[in-house]
Amino acid sequence: MSSIVELLAKKRDGGEHTAEEIARLIGAFSAGELADYQMSAWLMAVFQRGMTDAETDALTQAMLQSGEVLDLSRVPGVKVDKHSTGGVGDKISICLAPLVAACGVPVPMVSGRGLGHTGGTLDKLEAIPGFDVNLDARSFAHTVATVGASMIGQTKELAPADKRIYALRDVTATVECVPLIVASILSKKLAEGIDALVLDVKVGAGAFMKTEAQARVLAEALARVGARGGKRVVALLTDMSAPIGRTVGNALETREALEVLHGKGPDDTLALTLALGAEMLVLGKKAKNLADAEGKLQKAISSGRGLSTMKKLVAAHHGDPRVVDDPDRLPRAKVQVEVTSERAGWVTSIDPLELGLAAVELGAGRTRADQAVKPDVGVELTVTRGARVKKGLLLATVHADDRAKAKAMAARVKRAFTIADASFPPPPLVLGRVEA
Amino acid sequence: MSSIVELLAKKRDGGEHTAEEIARLIGAFSAGELADYQMSAWLMAVFQRGMTDAETDALTQAMLQSGEVLDLSRVPGVKVDKHSTGGVGDKISICLAPLVAACGVPVPMVSGRGLGHTGGTLDKLEAIPGFDVNLDARSFAHTVATVGASMIGQTKELAPADKRIYALRDVTATVECVPLIVASILSKKLAEGIDALVLDVKVGAGAFMKTEAQARVLAEALARVGARGGKRVVALLTDMSAPIGRTVGNALETREALEVLHGKGPDDTLALTLALGAEMLVLGKKAKNLADAEGKLQKAISSGRGLSTMKKLVAAHHGDPRVVDDPDRLPRAKVQVEVTSERAGWVTSIDPLELGLAAVELGAGRTRADQAVKPDVGVELTVTRGARVKKGLLLATVHADDRAKAKAMAARVKRAFTIADASFPPPPLVLGRVEA
Repeated sequence: MSSIVELLAKKRDGGEHTAEEIARLIGAFSAGELADYQMSAWLMAVFQRGMTDAETDALTQAMLQSGEVLDLSRVPGVKVDKHSTGGVGDKISICLAPLVAACGVPVPMVSGRGLGHTGGTLDKLEAIPGFDVNLDARSFAHTVATVGASMIGQTKELAPADKRIYALRDVTATVECVPLIVASILSKKLAEGIDALVLDVKVGAGAFMKTEAQARVLAEALARVGARGGKRVVALLTDMSAPIGRTVGNALETREALEVLHGKGPDDTLALTLALGAEMLVLGKKAKNLADAEGKLQKAISSGRGLSTMKKLVAAHHGDPRVVDDPDRLPRAKVQVEVTSERAGWVTSIDPLELGLAAVELGAGRTRADQAVKPDVGVELTVTRGARVKKGLLLATVHADDRAKAKAMAARVKRAFTIADASFPPPPLVLGRVEA
Repeated sequence: MSSIVELLAKKRDGGEHTAEEIARLIGAFSAGELADYQMSAWLMAVFQRGMTDAETDALTQAMLQSGEVLDLSRVPGVKVDKHSTGGVGDKISICLAPLVAACGVPVPMVSGRGLGHTGGTLDKLEAIPGFDVNLDARSFAHTVATVGASMIGQTKELAPADKRIYALRDVTATVECVPLIVASILSKKLAEGIDALVLDVKVGAGAFMKTEAQARVLAEALARVGARGGKRVVALLTDMSAPIGRTVGNALETREALEVLHGKGPDDTLALTLALGAEMLVLGKKAKNLADAEGKLQKAISSGRGLSTMKKLVAAHHGDPRVVDDPDRLPRAKVQVEVTSERAGWVTSIDPLELGLAAVELGAGRTRADQAVKPDVGVELTVTRGARVKKGLLLATVHADDRAKAKAMAARVKRAFTIADASFPPPPLVLGRVEA
């Protein structure tokens, strides 16, 4: 049997690992027999030499097996989750999960927190008074079974090897590596006990993947490796060259998601919810095709079944369900400062990265994983890309807990807008679709 | 200023570091601000992407500056050392240092211990009763000044960053990387306070570099980077397809080196000593050319000046100087077992790796850095490559402390010999010469 150093040398020289070799590497790492400095040398070798789909699948399975897999066998039906690679203003999960559940597809969702300019679903849900994202495995399964959906954070029992490896990648310049990203996402998602997965791979200035070509490579690898692991995976490539909807910030985004359930959300937020939800309904065998699925989702909105599922979901998580019908119960920041247009013209772009960073500075996000966030601060847009504006028109409102900071961030938000003499058609919301 | 992770990403993507960046990496590593797992990711990136001579020079200087540089300013003359990349039966330093010193060139030598199949000068010197290889920096400088040569081990003050990095390379599959080897060798050697260096780069089955092409790449890089650091470096590529001389094992090799000083050593041991010594005398400005230098070294043998320098060197290291005139005072193993030829013919090869590994199993070497070695065990050859032998002729004697082990190793030593029906001319001892 090869030594650990011989296994490192094999990948160093461009060799392909067997599944047994990858299981040994991860097993030895979990057991403390392979040191952090050996894992990081292996990760850098993988970064340089790549991995085949078979290796990526083996790594996914080994990280999955390093912890528990949630047991949802008591929940009938095809269980489907959605994962986004992260963007600015991405509150889709909060309206998507109850709508899909209301249509009969169980949604077991393990979500993340915000880091850097991208927000996190857990931070947004916690803006609802009392909402608890730390249900134990048993309560999670019970909520999925009875409500149809539940949303929690990654517990230390789920794919712990992935958690340790991700922490190493973050400090050894080995994050931007497709097979490692694929194995990290899939190991966590498969640990939820799902049968199928819809991925929202974001493309553009506000996303991790800046070009459609990069995003397509990642989406295709996720779909192929997911299929090897026996799961159906559909990925949509979606535009992240402008923020999603009209809000960036925790309570502000939760309010917008609730408005979608009320039939009043912004067009793009609704469209993205329907596009991703339709894929989930088809995978979950509750719709014949995407058009049928969109109709069913629209009906779940108009009938109020999405709202009533959301109320049950909030209650099951010990939150105040009155917030769902009355979003004014969400926390509101002390200070509001308006951002107005300096000139007339067309809004041709709104830089999502700048808005995301402004929200972080206001306290809505974090730059280190151990920081707390404020629920009420953020940025609310009055106009979106493509709008025609007059001089002095209200573009956005900054919500802050301090007037000086609000004014500084208002200037930053103003700079995020580009107002030109002619309009340009914005890119489509869904840029592509990938299926294994 | 770039973060540590940005510096790792730069090398990961094939960028060239500035000298300041490399100084920051090594400085942060020495200060504990750059973790082992980050250093090992960087080492793997260097393995994959390589380093320019400027980067290798910067790494050499940074590791050198991580500790003390021995102060030999009180010692007049051009100080010259020799370094070998490691072979089997390589006892050259022990006769070379006193001969070169006897010709007027000061030799400050920091040597290593054996590891795996290759022996180490320190282990061989310690076969001399009382010999102390751990002189402090002051005694070392005093011995070089008064005797002309001193031989010690690497102290923890000399290039400590190299020592820690080497330990990481050993367990992360990043040993076989030319710029890292070059910086490791040169940082230790420059810390001795030398002005010039002669390198013996070994080529063949018993060496680290198996082919002449690999060895030439290493030798040229050592010469070029040494020259950048302001030191003159000459490298000889020498044959390691058979053991050097007639002995493998600590006291056995020390005896052979003393025999060279007595004018009685094997031809190849003497020839290698003269070839390396001549380069040292020319670099040390004590000879006009290599032929002149060889004549002076021969005279140092015939006049007995090499012997008298060796006696002073042994005494300065608290060893028993009577050993120099009377090598029978060296320890001798309890058991001797003879290896005889099974057939008549010509000895066409003697596998140095097999002999080196047999010596390790007898206890002359070690497989882990923390193991002790036995001074008296080893293998003594009666015939060398090219000899014509009859059936039943004595080929070698195994020296052991246990008869069963001696017999097992005698069988292994016999297998190391190839005896054929025709003779082949052996390769030349010196395969090439490289100078910056």
